[in-house]
This record gives sequence, C-alpha cells and structure tokens, in this order.
Amino acid sequence: MRARPGFAALALRLTGSHMKIGFIGLGNMGHGMARNLLKAGHQVLVYNRTRSRAEALAPDGAQVADSPAAACAAEAVVTMLADDAAVESVVFGGGGVLSALGRGGIHISMSTISVAFSDRLAETHRNAGHGYVAAPVFGRPDAAAAGQLVVIAAGPEQEVRRCEPLFDAVGQKTFYIGEKPSSANLVKLSGNFLIASVLESLGEAFALVRKGGIDPHRYVEILTGTLFSAPVYKIYGSIIADQKYEPAGFKMALGLKDVRLALAAADALAVPMPVASVVRDHFLAGLAQGEGDSDWAGLARLCARNAGL
Amino acid sequence: MRARPGFAALALRLTGSHMKIGFIGLGNMGHGMARNLLKAGHQVLVYNRTRSRAEALAPDGAQVADSPAAACAAEAVVTMLADDAAVESVVFGGGGVLSALGRGGIHISMSTISVAFSDRLAETHRNAGHGYVAAPVFGRPDAAAAGQLVVIAAGPEQEVRRCEPLFDAVGQKTFYIGEKPSSANLVKLSGNFLIASVLESLGEAFALVRKGGIDPHRYVEILTGTLFSAPVYKIYGSIIADQKYEPAGFKMALGLKDVRLALAAADALAVPMPVASVVRDHFLAGLAQGEGDSDWAGLARLCARNAGL
Amino acid sequence: MRARPGFAALALRLTGSHMKIGFIGLGNMGHGMARNLLKAGHQVLVYNRTRSRAEALAPDGAQVADSPAAACAAEAVVTMLADDAAVESVVFGGGGVLSALGRGGIHISMSTISVAFSDRLAETHRNAGHGYVAAPVFGRPDAAAAGQLVVIAAGPEQEVRRCEPLFDAVGQKTFYIGEKPSSANLVKLSGNFLIASVLESLGEAFALVRKGGIDPHRYVEILTGTLFSAPVYKIYGSIIADQKYEPAGFKMALGLKDVRLALAAADALAVPMPVASVVRDHFLAGLAQGEGDSDWAGLARLCARNAGL
Amino acid sequence: MRARPGFAALALRLTGSHMKIGFIGLGNMGHGMARNLLKAGHQVLVYNRTRSRAEALAPDGAQVADSPAAACAAEAVVTMLADDAAVESVVFGGGGVLSALGRGGIHISMSTISVAFSDRLAETHRNAGHGYVAAPVFGRPDAAAAGQLVVIAAGPEQEVRRCEPLFDAVGQKTFYIGEKPSSANLVKLSGNFLIASVLESLGEAFALVRKGGIDPHRYVEILTGTLFSAPVYKIYGSIIADQKYEPAGFKMALGLKDVRLALAAADALAVPMPVASVVRDHFLAGLAQGEGDSDWAGLARLCARNAGL
Repeated sequence: MRARPGFAALALRLTGSHMKIGFIGLGNMGHGMARNLLKAGHQVLVYNRTRSRAEALAPDGAQVADSPAAACAAEAVVTMLADDAAVESVVFGGGGVLSALGRGGIHISMSTISVAFSDRLAETHRNAGHGYVAAPVFGRPDAAAAGQLVVIAAGPEQEVRRCEPLFDAVGQKTFYIGEKPSSANLVKLSGNFLIASVLESLGEAFALVRKGGIDPHRYVEILTGTLFSAPVYKIYGSIIADQKYEPAGFKMALGLKDVRLALAAADALAVPMPVASVVRDHFLAGLAQGEGDSDWAGLARLCARNAGL
Repeated sequence: MRARPGFAALALRLTGSHMKIGFIGLGNMGHGMARNLLKAGHQVLVYNRTRSRAEALAPDGAQVADSPAAACAAEAVVTMLADDAAVESVVFGGGGVLSALGRGGIHISMSTISVAFSDRLAETHRNAGHGYVAAPVFGRPDAAAAGQLVVIAAGPEQEVRRCEPLFDAVGQKTFYIGEKPSSANLVKLSGNFLIASVLESLGEAFALVRKGGIDPHRYVEILTGTLFSAPVYKIYGSIIADQKYEPAGFKMALGLKDVRLALAAADALAVPMPVASVVRDHFLAGLAQGEGDSDWAGLARLCARNAGL
Repeated sequence: MRARPGFAALALRLTGSHMKIGFIGLGNMGHGMARNLLKAGHQVLVYNRTRSRAEALAPDGAQVADSPAAACAAEAVVTMLADDAAVESVVFGGGGVLSALGRGGIHISMSTISVAFSDRLAETHRNAGHGYVAAPVFGRPDAAAAGQLVVIAAGPEQEVRRCEPLFDAVGQKTFYIGEKPSSANLVKLSGNFLIASVLESLGEAFALVRKGGIDPHRYVEILTGTLFSAPVYKIYGSIIADQKYEPAGFKMALGLKDVRLALAAADALAVPMPVASVVRDHFLAGLAQGEGDSDWAGLARLCARNAGL
Repeated sequence: MRARPGFAALALRLTGSHMKIGFIGLGNMGHGMARNLLKAGHQVLVYNRTRSRAEALAPDGAQVADSPAAACAAEAVVTMLADDAAVESVVFGGGGVLSALGRGGIHISMSTISVAFSDRLAETHRNAGHGYVAAPVFGRPDAAAAGQLVVIAAGPEQEVRRCEPLFDAVGQKTFYIGEKPSSANLVKLSGNFLIASVLESLGEAFALVRKGGIDPHRYVEILTGTLFSAPVYKIYGSIIADQKYEPAGFKMALGLKDVRLALAAADALAVPMPVASVVRDHFLAGLAQGEGDSDWAGLARLCARNAGL
C-alpha cells in the first residue's frame, strides 16, 4: 500500500506475512503474477481451464487445482480472466467461487471487468459473507513477469489491507481508491481510455506531419524530449514511427473491449465522452478490416490509411 | 542546436558570438525572450506597437525602435506576434520588414503562424534576397522569462546555424527539422493539437471518475505516478482537479486559433483529424459561452458541465 | 402485406379473417393498437401490469386477462412493452409467455427491442415449438390511435402471413423484410437512428442560421419547400423553430435507448457509426442536464445552448 | 418572389418585363441558366474564360462578351463561378466588375461563396454605388437546364425586386430571406451541410443493414415509403443502394468545399457543429484516397469500407 498518503497504518503491516492464495486464470498476465506470488513465498493453488498452463507452474511450487472450487481452499482467491463472461462463469457457475469460498474468504478481482459487474460481485459476495476487493492492474505482460505492475485497489479498508502482501508481490506500487470496489475498475477503464486517446491523437498527428514531409522518428524525439516525456508517448511513439503493429503487445480487440466498458460506465453515469466515441469507432473499423489482432497502436495505421498514406 | 543528433558541425559554432537583433512583438512571451537576448550579450532593437512595452526594456540595454523598419537595422529580425494578420501587417505593410531588411538579413518568425503563411513568407523573402527561418517555440510565459523554451527550427541549414546564438539565449533546447521553414510551424501546430487533445481527454476522464465518486486529486496522483508522468499531465491534471481556469496561462481563444491552424494544414494536406475536430468544436462552445479568456484547460469544465456536474 | 413487391401470394389471404389475439402492454402505443384490433373485429385478450389500463378497453370489447399467461390463450400474442427487460420478464418469467403459449402459437414482438434479444427470442420460441415474428412499428401515439402505423415485419413467411390481418388493423402499410426476425428490429433501430441524425443536424443548422440572424420559421419553410419535403423535417422543423420541446411526443430518454441499441447492433457487426456516436453523446448530455423527459428534438436545444444562444 | 408570404408587393411586378443582363460563368450550371434567360426574352451578354462556351450560346441569341468588363454593359450582372477566388478575380481584378459596372447596376452573385466574402462584396459594391444581391441556388445541372432551380435571395428589397424577372426565368421558386445579402449564402451553405449530413447518416445506416443481411434496395423503399419521402432521400438512397458514384452529379471535392465554408461561417459565429466536422473529415478521407471526383454520396462508400464491406 505504498504510495497511499495518509494511510499510514497500512504501512505497519507485518512485511513478510505469507498467505494461502487461489489463483484462477494463467494467461499472459496471470502466469507472471502467480509466479511472483510463489517467489515471494506465498502458497498458491493455481487453476486454469487449459490444465497444462497450471502444471507449468508446479516446478515453481504451485499446487495445481482441478477446479475453480478447489482453488478456493484459500484465504483469498484471485481471478485474472479475459472478460466479464469468464469471471461470471467461474464465480456463478456450478462449483464456482461463490459456493466454494469459505466464510471470510476474499475474492480479489484483478482482471479488467465492467463497473456494473464489479458492483454485482460486491453485492453477491457481501451477501455470501465473503470479502470482495477489486484490484485491476496497469502494465503489460513483461511488467507482470517482472513484478512491476501498478495495482489499483478498492474495497473495505480492512479487506484491502489483508491483500497487501499479495499486491506487493506482483506490483511496484499500489494505489488505494476507496471503499467501493468498482471505483478501482472505473479508474482502470478510464486509464485505458486515456491511453487509447493518446494512440488516436498520435495517429492523427503522425499522419499530418508525415504528409507534411517530416521524419516520424525525428518527430517522436521532439515530442518525448519535451512536454510528452511519459512512458505512454515513448513506447507508442516508437511503435507508430516504426509502423510495427505486429506482434501485438495489447490487441486492438482488447482495446475495443476496454473502451466499450468505459463507455458503458459513462452511459450509466450520463457522461458524454466524444473522444472515447471516436476511439471506439476507429477500433471497430480496425476490427472490420481484419486488424483485431494487431497492437492497439494500430489506430495510427487507420489514421494514416484515411489520409491516403 | 543541441539535441540535434548527426548535426555535429552546428555544435562547433563559436559560443559567445554576439548578434545584432531586431525584435518585434513584446507581449507575454516576447518580453521575456528579448530580455534573455540582452542578458546573453546580444544587441537588441525592440519594437512594439504600444511603445511603453518597448521602453520597459531600455534599462536592460535595449534600443527602442520607432517602427518595424527601424528594428530591421540588424542581422536578423524576430517577429513574435499574435497571429498571421499581425505578422502580415508588420512584414508587408508600408515601412515593413520586407522593404527595410537588408540583403542577407534573416527574418526569424517565432510566433505560431499558419503553414500556408509561413510558405508565403519563405517565398517572398527568398525573392527579396533575405533569409527566412521559422522557429516557433514550446513553453508558457514563465519558460520564456526563464530562457527555458524549446525551439523548433527549420530553414536552410546555413541560415539556421547563424541563428543559433539567439536560440541558445531564449531556449533550453533547439530541434532542427529540415530545410523547409514551414515544417517547424507544422510541428508546432501538431504539438499544440496534442496538448489540446490531452486536455479534452482528461476532461472526459475527470468527468467520468468524478461522477463515479472518485476524488480528482487522488486521480491525478495515480495518472502522473504511472503511465502519464509527463509535464503536460502534471500541469494540466492539477489545474483540472482544482477546477482553477482563471487566470489563464494560455487562453482558450488562442487554443482555438492554434487548433484551427492545425486543421487548416490538415485540410491542405487532406488529413482527417477527428479528435482535432472534437477539440475545435468544444473550444467554439467555450467561446460561445463566454469563456474565451479562461485557460484552455477549461475544456474540462465544458466536459463536466455536459455531464451535469 | 401491401407494399411488398413480388410477394403476391400474401395479397391473396382472405381479408376479413378474424384472429384471437393476446395483447400485452397497453401504454401510449399499445392502447391505440389494441383498440384498432378490436374495431377490426378481432377477439382481444388484454393484459397490462397496471390493470386499470386493461379494464379501460373492456367497453370496446376486450377481455381483461389476469396474467401474461392468461393472455396467451390465443393464436398469437403481441408484446408492446418498454424495453428488453420488460419483454424478458413477461416471456421468461414464471407464468410467462414461453410456458403459457400453445404449440403453434405465435409471439409477435412489436416494441423496439435489441437485435440480440430478438435473436434469443427467435431461438427460444423455435425450440418451444412456437412461431416468432418481429414486427416493430414506425409512428407516434397519434398514428397508433389512428391505425396509421407502418409495420416492419420479419420471420418465416408463413408465420408472417398469418399475422397480416393483425398488421392491417394497426397500420397503413406493412413491409416484409425477410425470414430472420431480428432483421425487422435492425431496420427499426436504423430508422430511429436516421431520425435522430436529422434532429441533430437540424439542431446544428438552426443554431447556425439563428446566430446569423435568420428567422427560424422562414428557414423551416425553405427547407420543407424544397429538398426536405418529408414528414420528419416538417414535424421536427416546426418543433425546433418553435423551441417547444415539452410535452414530449417521444422522450429523449427513449431516443437514447434506441440509439444505444443501434450502436450495440453496430458493435456486434463491426460497423463504425460516427454520427450515431455524436447523437448518443448529445442525448447523454441532455439526460445529464435533466432533460430526459423532453422531446428528443431537444437535441436542437443542446446545439443552441452550446452555441451560446 | 413566389413563396414569399407577406411580401405581396413583389408579386405585383410587371410580369414579362425584360432585362439586359450580363452573365459570367458558363459551367454546368451557368450554361442552362443563361439559356433560360434567353428563352424568357432577356437580352444576355455572356462571358466565359474559355470563350467557346460563350459562343455556344450565340445561336440562342446571346451576345458574346470579350471580357468581364464587357459583360457589365447591362442593368445587372450575374456571377456563377467555381469559388470565392474565381469571383474575386472577376470582380476585383483589372477590368473587373467593380470598375466596369455602371452606377445603379446590380451584381447578382448566384454561385456558392463564403459568407465572409459575400459581406465584403456587399460593402465594396455599396461604396461603389452598385446594388448587390446574393442569390445562390439549390438544384443540380438538370434542374438548371429545366429552369427548375430554387433561388434563395437576399439584399435590399428594392434591388431584389428588380431581379425577379431573372429569378423567375431560372427557377421554379424564389425565397426572399432579408436585407443582408450574406443571409442567402448562409442558408445555402447550411442547406448543403444538411444534404451532406443525410449522405453520411444514410452511409452509416446502409453499412449497418447491409452487414445485417438486409437488401439495400428494399431498405430504400421502406425509408422513402414512410418518414423519409423527400427528394434528397429518394435521389441519394438509390445512388447508395446501387453503389453508383460515378459519374458524379456533384463532386465530393465540391461537397468538401461547401462544408468547409459552412464550418468557416460557424467558426465566425462561434457555433459548434459536430456532425459537420464528421462530414468534413470523411470528405477529406475521400479526397486523400483519390475519390474527389466521385459523387459526394460516395461518403457511403467510405462508411461501407470502414465497416469492412
């Protein structure tokens, strides 16, 4: 819970305390996260639909669970799955987390899900006597592997505090948002919207300067050497200048998913977001044109193509 | 010409070489720039329509010129004026730069003007036997006062090299773009578009999270503590979280002017820029609602108001 | 099935054939429709959650049903309800249409529902041995009362043919789209999007000419006297020129609902719709500012307000 | 001046009164208009840069003028030229309308020009003791040939009245807007924006229904058979359903020009027009992709392509 000013008590927790953790979902992100939990000395029960991905962690000390329910024989169970539907199936399905998790156990939802579904999980778990913490992360698979994610956590303070050793093992920094779990999901979705808006804006700017005869690599250098000296401009500025959208670090189809969820939250709160709408329409155009598996920075390729480049 | 890789010759220039410079336009930006030229030991002839602003620099060693023509009795004359029309009047008007500047003299156009007008200046000066360098700057008045601007320079290499002592006096860094002067204007305009796109996107994101009950200051902290650790997010994130749009650092009316010029360049090059269009429409809404003198970050106030906040 | 070229067989049906029809949902639209069914000589079992609205039709010959199930004692049962959720509850809920409708009975879904939900209804009814026809309508409550709706029908041809006497009683014209029921829903949603796009475009044009000093009533006259001589421009042009958005003929909140459904269908089919996105954002702004109950032509009021009028 | 309620005096003019008219600009539109003036018995001096187009009207009774100035030996001189620049050159250039037109002569500006330029013409002519009437027209070349244009006229009432016999010869209907000439230009530009917005909206709707498997010709039939029974939907609905964008009735490059002028007027009046911005961006994309000479309904082809069709 570093980087949480005025939340000093949290800093007093016993560093080094070890947890028994279930971990469901061992994709590109989940694999690295589970491994870092093991490295930090936690006991981890891993479950994945494709069992081989779970077994791959056995050499690191993981216990392979045969079902989501089996992974719930723990203090806390993490879900790190593709989307709302995947989490819903694992939580509400037969032999799911909801029925298997013990009283007082905590469900830590770390993948990017919708605000509405996070609210539903919060209510359902509360009624079942479970804890529920939303803790989505910022960072790409390499950051997950390196334990360098940024964790955005929300939920009842006491519950979030119990999860700290876990967050410390997977991330470089944890931000606590507040008592309402879905606040963390909203922050995560708005953050992904902001990244996507940078991609679209850069795409438009690059199309403009390229048609004006300016070298795109020189242009990146100027941007990142001045006002735009942030990782998001450095990483994606290079990808766009190189026009190298494959292989994807984060797929356009996933970018669309997240902007869709941001817009759904905006709709529920009655917030017009015209730039988010532009981005959504361009992601759809990318998918329609067969580029859903390209990096989401491929928005810039669409901008270039629209400009006849 | 620091920060110009592969342009080593430029670095060999005699540092300390002093120039005789005319400086036309002593507004918020020009005043600080002219003062830094004087501090660096250059001889400066200052002209301003409102004469008192020129006289204010006399104690620093400036010679007050009575007319734009009088300011042209120099190796190079800088224009730092409000817009195309102001530069046009000073250059093409009776007793203007065009007729007064000596053969071989250089006109350095440092304010933000349109690509088309910069092209026209380049051609006209070439025909008149003058040099012409476009060198717009990034930075607000405090950076101008501190000699910490970023200079984007373009024009024939030899001419740009002659201007280096001047650029070094006003800026922290100079980027050389290439032989075509208006390239520098295009980079400057695209850069201001990128800043405006950040303002709009942040405005939408803040409206969303604020309606979702999240503390805006906490939100800035998260953004700038992770992916968005660039000055543009820090400076404007704070302004937006504080909802403090007056007094303006850079007025919305000027933001509109610059996005309009970016869109004009995009039109001439046939580049669709939908986010620039969204930004332009919102700046217009701001002006129509009487907020043209507020800071351009006031885009976020429009987003908030549209969301019923 | 008039206005269905090349579908001559349908025209041969015995005019005057009478049906036994269940009718669920007696709101502004449903009331008039049910009444016209009665007038045409059909036997109608009416059900409404608020029973008094059903009883009001008894003098016209309606039999009041105590439950959705009771209304299913018929050849065909019409649903004319607010949204997907309302239809879902009446169809899938305990004692709902799904369990009560007899083998071979037809569910005619006439309200505006989503494409995805219409597909689900089609599949579910097919599995249950029911017919399913989607037949959304164009027209406002006065057209429903006058039997002047336009019916857009889709479903297996034989089933649609059986419903013709019913369509003839409520509408002036029926268009048959094809075998897939949800095609009719897609046409209906796209049509409502087109109307909304007219409202937004008119709103922008009126703001422009009003600020230019042109009389808005004169402007309507010109538009509708030339290229734009269609009902949609006549009806809404007047409302906008008069700035009379209350009481609503069709509420902004419902306009938002329908554009949302159009965008959901577009998302599923990967079709970018930027104008639909603009309209959606403006409807959201209207709702956020407390105008959800105004007529959806109130989009023009938002345009005017954004222009400082 | 038919169709001008409350302007009865105008209807009392002597029908059949004949004028001596100069006509400058004999393109697709101008040729038919000049011919109809001749047919109606007016005396017409025709001028065109490419002289052969003027000579082609000699058999109809036209007198061929050797210069714009020669065409000004008349009561009124019409300009029907491509854009502001063409009119500027003919009016302000050496031997132009401004110097050649007699005191009391009227310049009738009938092509689509900008509001700002029309204001400048009004002021300049007033100072020169000329009349100035703006009278842009709606209608494509076939309507010009048939004398079926719609004329939108503005200017001092007395001057407009003098032009009536001319308007009656070229159009089916004249709408009088008011004293300020540029009002007519604003109405014309807003009208072309409305048509373009219909093209874009139809393009989006057709992309949606086509991807949903619906026959586009059937779709046109439904739209124009109900709410959208106006010429603009009939004409363009067919073009889009047929996907027949060549040869152009009205080129995309001209559509872009007019939307650009509408946006310039909106900018000057501080009116945000987001749909106009969407349309402008799509026209630019069309031009950038080499489709500037296609019909402006080709917006729908761009929508289809973006949707992967």
